[in-house]
Amino acid sequence: MWRLTEDHLESIATGAAILGTGGGGNPYVGMLRAREALRRYSPVDVLTPEELDEDARVVCVGGIGAPTVGIEKMRDIQAYHALRALEDYVGEKATALISNEMGGSNSLEPIIPASIAGLPIVDGDAMGRAFPELQMKTFFIYGVPWYPLALADEKGNSAIFPKAISATWMERMARSVTIQMGCIACYALAPMSTDQIRRTAVPHTLSLALSLGRAVKDAQARHEDPIDAIMSVYPGKVLFQGKIVDLERRTTTGFARGKVVIDGLGDYAPGQMSIEFQNENLIASIDGQVVCLVPDLICVVDTERGEPITTELLRYGFRVTVLGFPAHPLLKSPQALEVVGPKAFGYPHQYLPLEV
Amino acid sequence: MWRLTEDHLESIATGAAILGTGGGGNPYVGMLRAREALRRYSPVDVLTPEELDEDARVVCVGGIGAPTVGIEKMRDIQAYHALRALEDYVGEKATALISNEMGGSNSLEPIIPASIAGLPIVDGDAMGRAFPELQMKTFFIYGVPWYPLALADEKGNSAIFPKAISATWMERMARSVTIQMGCIACYALAPMSTDQIRRTAVPHTLSLALSLGRAVKDAQARHEDPIDAIMSVYPGKVLFQGKIVDLERRTTTGFARGKVVIDGLGDYAPGQMSIEFQNENLIASIDGQVVCLVPDLICVVDTERGEPITTELLRYGFRVTVLGFPAHPLLKSPQALEVVGPKAFGYPHQYLPLEV
Repeated sequence: MWRLTEDHLESIATGAAILGTGGGGNPYVGMLRAREALRRYSPVDVLTPEELDEDARVVCVGGIGAPTVGIEKMRDIQAYHALRALEDYVGEKATALISNEMGGSNSLEPIIPASIAGLPIVDGDAMGRAFPELQMKTFFIYGVPWYPLALADEKGNSAIFPKAISATWMERMARSVTIQMGCIACYALAPMSTDQIRRTAVPHTLSLALSLGRAVKDAQARHEDPIDAIMSVYPGKVLFQGKIVDLERRTTTGFARGKVVIDGLGDYAPGQMSIEFQNENLIASIDGQVVCLVPDLICVVDTERGEPITTELLRYGFRVTVLGFPAHPLLKSPQALEVVGPKAFGYPHQYLPLEV
Repeated sequence: MWRLTEDHLESIATGAAILGTGGGGNPYVGMLRAREALRRYSPVDVLTPEELDEDARVVCVGGIGAPTVGIEKMRDIQAYHALRALEDYVGEKATALISNEMGGSNSLEPIIPASIAGLPIVDGDAMGRAFPELQMKTFFIYGVPWYPLALADEKGNSAIFPKAISATWMERMARSVTIQMGCIACYALAPMSTDQIRRTAVPHTLSLALSLGRAVKDAQARHEDPIDAIMSVYPGKVLFQGKIVDLERRTTTGFARGKVVIDGLGDYAPGQMSIEFQNENLIASIDGQVVCLVPDLICVVDTERGEPITTELLRYGFRVTVLGFPAHPLLKSPQALEVVGPKAFGYPHQYLPLEV
C-alpha cells in the first residue's frame, strides 16, 4: 500500500497518457482535477490487487465521451455522483475503486470519488491502456457482469442501466445518453469481488504509469533522451519520427474520430506514416504498410521532450515520435481479440503481435 | 367501475385514434396486442379518478418511439417489464395503472401490464389526446415529478433514470436510449398519489374514446354519416375535405416527422390543405392560412367510413376529412401552452383557440 499525494499526479498523468495511446482524456486537465480533490477532501491510498481484503467490493469508475469535448467541458465530481447512484441502486457500499482504463485523465478519475468518499483505489485497470468503448474491458471479456451501470452528468441528470443483454448493448445505451448529456459523463459499474479483480484486472498499471511519467520527467531534467527513458520502463519500439502534415478530426457518434499523417524526418524520410484513431490510436501504417495495430499500443510523443500527445491535442507541424508497445497478455487471448482486435474496430487486418 | 372486455377494444382503439390526432401508435396493432393479453392473462377493471382509493399508487405506462417503426416492430410486454423495473427501483407496488396518452395504441398499452399484474386501470390520461414528447404530460405541467422513469425493450435491456433536471431532459435521455433500442420501447413513471391523479390527469378519456369509437361503428352499421356521429360525442368542426396529393414522411431523431398535402374536393375545391406532423398532427393550413394548431386536435379520418388515419398510414390518394376539436382546458392554461403550444414545437404562431 502506498499513499498517493499531489506530487505523484503529474507523473501518473504523463505515464498514463503514454499508455493511453492518444485517448483516455486530457492528462493535464485530469491532473488539475485530481489535485483539487486531494486538496479539498481526504488523502487516497493505493492497494495492489494482492493487498485487497478478501471480501472487498470494488467499483470501477470512469469518464465516457469524446476527449475533444472534455477539454472544453471539464468533468466535475460526476464520478462521485455515479458511484452514489450505483451504491443506492445495488444497496451496498464500495470498499475500493478502480480505474476503467490507464489513459490520461481516466487513470486519475477514481481519485476524485475516492478522495470524497474516503476510499482506497486499486493499482490496476481494465485495459492496461485506453480503449474507446465500454465492452472493451478485461472484466467483461473474462466473465464479470457489465450491469448494473450508473451514469451521471454535471447538471444533476442520472441514469441506471439495470440490465443489458451484452456489454456492447450497455455501451450503446450509455453512449447515447452521454451524447445527450453533452458528450461527457461519468459512470460507475456494479461492485466486483476481490477474486474478480485479481482474475480479470490488468494489474499494477497505476504504478507503471507513475514509473513511466517519472522516467520522462527525470530524463527531461537531466537532458537525457526521454524516448530511451520510456523504453527502459516499458520495452517497446520506435515506429516512426517526423512532422505532422495533415490531420482530420471530427466529433461524431460520441467519439473523437480521425486520422493524422506524419512526414518522416531524418532516418525516416521520405516515408509517410498515417494513424487512424477513435479516441485512441488504432492502426499505424508507413506508406500503406501496417506497422502496428490494436490492441498493441501506438503512442505519439513529442520528439524533444517525450511528452505524450493525446488525439485531441494533435496539431499540424508538431515534431513527433511514434512508439509501439506490446499489449498486456490479457488483451491478446482469442476471446480478447474478438472484442479489442482489429476486426472489432472494423479493420480487415489480422492481428500480428508487435515484435520488440 | 366497469370491466373492460375484448368487445370494447376495437371501439376504444378507433376512438383513441381520433383523439390521438395521428399519433399514439397504430390502433389496430394496439387492439390485437391488448386482446391477446386479455385472453392470456386476467380481466382488467376500469376506475374513474373519483373511484380510486385514497391511498392508491398509480403508475403511468406508455410506449415511446416512432409509430412508423411500431407497425413493423411491434411492442411485446415491455410495458410490464418497465413496470416491474420501476417497482423494484422505488420499492413499492403500483395499485393501478394509467395511460400516458389517449392515442391509438398507447390508449390500450396499460391494459397489457394491468392484465398480467392483475391491476385496474384509471379512466383518464395525461394529454386528453396524443403528443410526441414525454414532458408534454399534464402530470408534469401541473407539478408531479417526472422521475424516476424505467424504460425496457423487447430484448431484455432496461434503463432507469433516477433523476433528470427537467421533464425535457428526461425526454432527451429516454429518447436517445429508445433510438438505440430500435426506436420502440415502453416506459413506466414513478407512482402517483390519488390526489395527484385527480388534480392533474385529463379525466374520463378512456370512456370518451369508447363512446367515440362506438359512434363511428354504429353509424357505419346504420349507413349514417360517421362524421356527424363523431361530432355528436365530441363537438368539433370539419376543417377540410379532399384527397391526399402529397406526403413527406421521415423517421428522424426518434420520431415520425413529415407533412401531408390535401387537394380540396366538393365545397373545398380548389383549396389545398397542408398538415405538418411530429408523430401527431400539429398545424393545419388552407392555402397558407392556419386554421387549427396544437394543442387543439387535428384529426384526419376516412371521409366515407369515419375511420381515423394515423400519420404512419397516410397515403397518396386517400379521400379524407380533416376534423378539428378544442383541446381539454388543462392543455390551454398559460403554463400548459408553454409546453404544448405552437412555440414548443418551433412554430412562430400565437395559439388561437379553435372556435366550434
